[in-house]
Amino acid sequence: MKALVYHGPGRLALEDKPKPIIIEATDAVVQITTTTICGTDLHILKGDVPTVIDGRILGHEGVGIIEEIGSDVIGLHKGDKVLISLITSCGRCRFCKKAMYSHCLNGGWLLGNSIDGTQAEYVRIPFADNGLYPLPPDVDDEAAVMLSCILPTGLECGTLKGQVKPGDIVAIVGAGPVGLAALLTAQLYSPAGIVMIDLDDNRLEIARSFGATQVVNSSDGKAAERVMELTQNAGVDVVIEAVGLSSTFDICQSIIAPGGHIANVGVHGKPVDLHLERLWASNITITTRLVDAGTTLMLLRMILSGRLDAKKLVSHRFGLSEILKAYNIFGNAAKEHALKVVISNRIAIV
Amino acid sequence: MKALVYHGPGRLALEDKPKPIIIEATDAVVQITTTTICGTDLHILKGDVPTVIDGRILGHEGVGIIEEIGSDVIGLHKGDKVLISLITSCGRCRFCKKAMYSHCLNGGWLLGNSIDGTQAEYVRIPFADNGLYPLPPDVDDEAAVMLSCILPTGLECGTLKGQVKPGDIVAIVGAGPVGLAALLTAQLYSPAGIVMIDLDDNRLEIARSFGATQVVNSSDGKAAERVMELTQNAGVDVVIEAVGLSSTFDICQSIIAPGGHIANVGVHGKPVDLHLERLWASNITITTRLVDAGTTLMLLRMILSGRLDAKKLVSHRFGLSEILKAYNIFGNAAKEHALKVVISNRIAIV
Amino acid sequence: MKALVYHGPGRLALEDKPKPIIIEATDAVVQITTTTICGTDLHILKGDVPTVIDGRILGHEGVGIIEEIGSDVIGLHKGDKVLISLITSCGRCRFCKKAMYSHCLNGGWLLGNSIDGTQAEYVRIPFADNGLYPLPPDVDDEAAVMLSCILPTGLECGTLKGQVKPGDIVAIVGAGPVGLAALLTAQLYSPAGIVMIDLDDNRLEIARSFGATQVVNSSDGKAAERVMELTQNAGVDVVIEAVGLSSTFDICQSIIAPGGHIANVGVHGKPVDLHLERLWASNITITTRLVDAGTTLMLLRMILSGRLDAKKLVSHRFGLSEILKAYNIFGNAAKEHALKVVISNRIAIV
Amino acid sequence: MKALVYHGPGRLALEDKPKPIIIEATDAVVQITTTTICGTDLHILKGDVPTVIDGRILGHEGVGIIEEIGSDVIGLHKGDKVLISLITSCGRCRFCKKAMYSHCLNGGWLLGNSIDGTQAEYVRIPFADNGLYPLPPDVDDEAAVMLSCILPTGLECGTLKGQVKPGDIVAIVGAGPVGLAALLTAQLYSPAGIVMIDLDDNRLEIARSFGATQVVNSSDGKAAERVMELTQNAGVDVVIEAVGLSSTFDICQSIIAPGGHIANVGVHGKPVDLHLERLWASNITITTRLVDAGTTLMLLRMILSGRLDAKKLVSHRFGLSEILKAYNIFGNAAKEHALKVVISNRIAIV
Repeated sequence: MKALVYHGPGRLALEDKPKPIIIEATDAVVQITTTTICGTDLHILKGDVPTVIDGRILGHEGVGIIEEIGSDVIGLHKGDKVLISLITSCGRCRFCKKAMYSHCLNGGWLLGNSIDGTQAEYVRIPFADNGLYPLPPDVDDEAAVMLSCILPTGLECGTLKGQVKPGDIVAIVGAGPVGLAALLTAQLYSPAGIVMIDLDDNRLEIARSFGATQVVNSSDGKAAERVMELTQNAGVDVVIEAVGLSSTFDICQSIIAPGGHIANVGVHGKPVDLHLERLWASNITITTRLVDAGTTLMLLRMILSGRLDAKKLVSHRFGLSEILKAYNIFGNAAKEHALKVVISNRIAIV
Repeated sequence: MKALVYHGPGRLALEDKPKPIIIEATDAVVQITTTTICGTDLHILKGDVPTVIDGRILGHEGVGIIEEIGSDVIGLHKGDKVLISLITSCGRCRFCKKAMYSHCLNGGWLLGNSIDGTQAEYVRIPFADNGLYPLPPDVDDEAAVMLSCILPTGLECGTLKGQVKPGDIVAIVGAGPVGLAALLTAQLYSPAGIVMIDLDDNRLEIARSFGATQVVNSSDGKAAERVMELTQNAGVDVVIEAVGLSSTFDICQSIIAPGGHIANVGVHGKPVDLHLERLWASNITITTRLVDAGTTLMLLRMILSGRLDAKKLVSHRFGLSEILKAYNIFGNAAKEHALKVVISNRIAIV
Repeated sequence: MKALVYHGPGRLALEDKPKPIIIEATDAVVQITTTTICGTDLHILKGDVPTVIDGRILGHEGVGIIEEIGSDVIGLHKGDKVLISLITSCGRCRFCKKAMYSHCLNGGWLLGNSIDGTQAEYVRIPFADNGLYPLPPDVDDEAAVMLSCILPTGLECGTLKGQVKPGDIVAIVGAGPVGLAALLTAQLYSPAGIVMIDLDDNRLEIARSFGATQVVNSSDGKAAERVMELTQNAGVDVVIEAVGLSSTFDICQSIIAPGGHIANVGVHGKPVDLHLERLWASNITITTRLVDAGTTLMLLRMILSGRLDAKKLVSHRFGLSEILKAYNIFGNAAKEHALKVVISNRIAIV
Repeated sequence: MKALVYHGPGRLALEDKPKPIIIEATDAVVQITTTTICGTDLHILKGDVPTVIDGRILGHEGVGIIEEIGSDVIGLHKGDKVLISLITSCGRCRFCKKAMYSHCLNGGWLLGNSIDGTQAEYVRIPFADNGLYPLPPDVDDEAAVMLSCILPTGLECGTLKGQVKPGDIVAIVGAGPVGLAALLTAQLYSPAGIVMIDLDDNRLEIARSFGATQVVNSSDGKAAERVMELTQNAGVDVVIEAVGLSSTFDICQSIIAPGGHIANVGVHGKPVDLHLERLWASNITITTRLVDAGTTLMLLRMILSGRLDAKKLVSHRFGLSEILKAYNIFGNAAKEHALKVVISNRIAIV
């Protein structure tokens, strides 16, 4: 089969690889119809994720058809259309019992990381009962594939950890795909206002069209002052950090109201300064989280009921044969005005 | 009346001051029978609290008898024995409606700060209905006065923010009075183990007698390693920071288990390093809080029912005439083996 | 002043009464510009509320202008435009400290009940700081007056007690004003579907236009079967009872899914059968609640931000001089296709 | 092997049955060292549980040693000492993902119900990873076997659903084993008082020795009046119903304070009257629940840390050969002063 293979920092190739087979009785093999590229894939490409070794097939997002199924899979059948979750979970360990599937002792984020992933024609999914979600045949693949990673991440790490509730003023720092996923999912809880903060005016315009009530361009270094003005110096109830830098975390600390919640979503490479000399008295909460994907079924219900328009996160579409081009576009997202780029094997076949 | 007056950094005097009177219809004047000294009073004495000006009567803890009562106080009467809460709250503003009384727009921590306090024969209490709690006549004053500040602080900022629950392993960094108050109140939620961390072996022994299941002397800089050993490298479910230094906050970050809670209680003077490069993926929660004293009534019930032995926090007893000596003992707590020092006006009279 | 006065079952009169004055220092007197009629007023008129005595001015909903203000009111000023909450709360008692304002030991539902109410030119409001909410001058009175009672009731007793969350299937039994208020507020939490159940097709059509995704006419006694069909026999996650009869409570018990929530809002006159022989094993929750009005400020934010269209609950408009006619229309709501009927003193003046 | 077999209402026999074998790859076969009898077994014996058919081996509680293990069990090994949970759960279905294991689509309460149970020398456990808990070799079997059913039931259905918290006044109706399990576990949350209500003075004395602060004998029909006196007419914060009759549920309704929680644990055979004509305005919560056993690990931690003395629930001990006698004693619990009766295969062997 065709698959996108990582060969060390900066080196990707679309190659022929053996089609995966069932190894454990709880496995399924899925024929991929649709996949996409995550910001994390770009981190891998830079060599920042040491668990990804030379020869690994990348990708942890996908929609497909079950091709083969292990003897111990009980809730799925060959031929089922399924959503692939980025998170593998055994459903048995102490972390799974606490719904912390991202820390599953027998799983976690494995696909396109420590095992081969979804940017291929086929993928093997361990613990298939817990890692796959049956889809109605008529669901839109492009909407559904947004449930593999980006929407649960925005919802769980941003909106839910931030405890967004009706009437809140929410700020989101970073209008990339994850920030936009936080923006879409925050609206499920009806905040009174959402302020989007980014360096890029194009992304801020998209944020506005996605439901942001105010936008702030932070390139002048005065985003915090601007947000405090907008809130009559009260600060915001929730701030979601969707970048992963010391400077963006600083904005969060400067605008949070007493009693507020800072939900960190961004992947950080360095420590940040935490201003406890000021915040110790502010009754605030700071959270970190890997996506556990426990909200996937709820998000699927929202998409099927027409109350969440996931598809608008998709900006570009390619066939699998064009995936290197897709990486190029997604890797230059600001310049290319790219959000999520979708890779369709069906297009490839045509 | 006699009162302890602050005259700038390092300067305290026991002086004659006019007896306070009712100013607002919601005020009460209380004759103090018992008061105590808080770690915050030592901060004031060092000049670290700029809102405290020359001439201020110190103290925010106390038990007494209502001497005079304003016309709009509805739940209290002259002659009632009462507990004085450190927190003044109007019960009307947006923060009071969220039970964030410490941030009350018309109150907060005022006593012995921006208005005269309780280390005196009498004190004026604003919004008396919300700042005083009727006590049964036979309650032990020394147990009751532990409810003015120290026990609600340990409970609310430590135990509750840390979400201590049955079966948890809890660590507490700092075995001073606040850490010990966290230790006592954490046990209301039945953790399976409590590890106490401090530099002082005497305090650790007291912690053990107060219910700590393990103690770790951190003077060798290896407290975190020791806690990880004790937990078979799982880390702890909750860690309560009751010191306020970068080094103690570092211990917290090093021992917290995935999914755990770091509850900061300590007053910090400087920023700390937050290791988001490691913690971004750990599903942890960090909280800060001023005590709101919303748990006072519950704690009073626990004392009255005999299920919380507050009195054992008291190590020394003085009359009001000896209060400068009491400050001296409390200011050298480690050397003097002091926990809370109680000042009794009854002793003074005798 | 003109006021609507109750003179025993079935007897109302628009009469001249003395203008109210400040009695307590915490009072305010408000000139009413807009009021409305509640289903509870109809209960009073039938003689079902024994605390309402002959001579009482009715009404517990209103918007107006502060005319006079007591010396101990701290957050309001003469001339302020204000919303009147149906709930009077002292902000000091043990129930207020638990945010159970409806059970306030010095308040609760007093207006138009044990003290004179708002269906008049002026009203006295006790504990004005807690019973009045400042309104921006340009807010729509008709939208704002929906916050006095109906919207907090639907939200607190229905939506919040039912714990509506994204992805849920919600059923609401009863499409009168309270059921519709539950319907509007449930949508703040993004359920995937809302099934409205009523005897009246006209009300069901209104429910559909307000956001119900399915409607079921229960006049054939088969509503429960119909809902089970709609949910493929899974039942609903939340059911809100907004009628108050044994038969409607039975529908709730028959359609609740394991793990679900039955939120009772209806006022019941008789015991109901609770089918514990079936439900003991179903992990369900049944709640009852008086409205506490603690969500008023949040709902006001939602109206001001344009995210909640409260005004569409208004079907008829009258001047104060026409209030008897308004009662007549509202008392025959199904026939008259009436939802909330608004009484405007401004119209009266014109 | 020897096994206790049900042959229709009133008919039990200790018989030779084939030793169970692995059927699914997720199974384990456990050699039972200790089991016990549940009140539910007595219901079965009366013929009240239609899913139990002639020939079924009874029992859903047990401690033992893994004898054989399926190829897909990942967290357990042959020879491990294990606790058997009454609940079988697949860890994969929508109910398992909500931690409602009792409603597992592939499990639930199966043992000694729809499949053979633990009152035998060996038992087959489906989904062994989720239904067995490794035990340290030196744990006391009699304490551990209290975790199979009785303690999780008292904790989850009673204490947790009742939301017992520090300072609460709790009432428990019924001082049988389940009520006593609620009594023991309620104390993990430090209520200020626990009132135990029962018809039997002997059981009330045991309750007192287990931590009840007051006891009320309800045989005069005046239990509710007595509890209201004890609480100065405030009522109780939590009431746990551990009987399952209309009359005992009535006591609960009569003593619950506004804002309180009624947690039903009892198995009811008939509907009860719910007094909504009074309770609609009381802001109360009524819950029902099957035990999900999600707290088993936490309870095990509490036992291992010495903070929960489970063993004191055991009143009688027998060998497997004496199990019919054990049923006789347990079936006449009041007369025999029996709590839990433990069946040990080790005793049988000796």
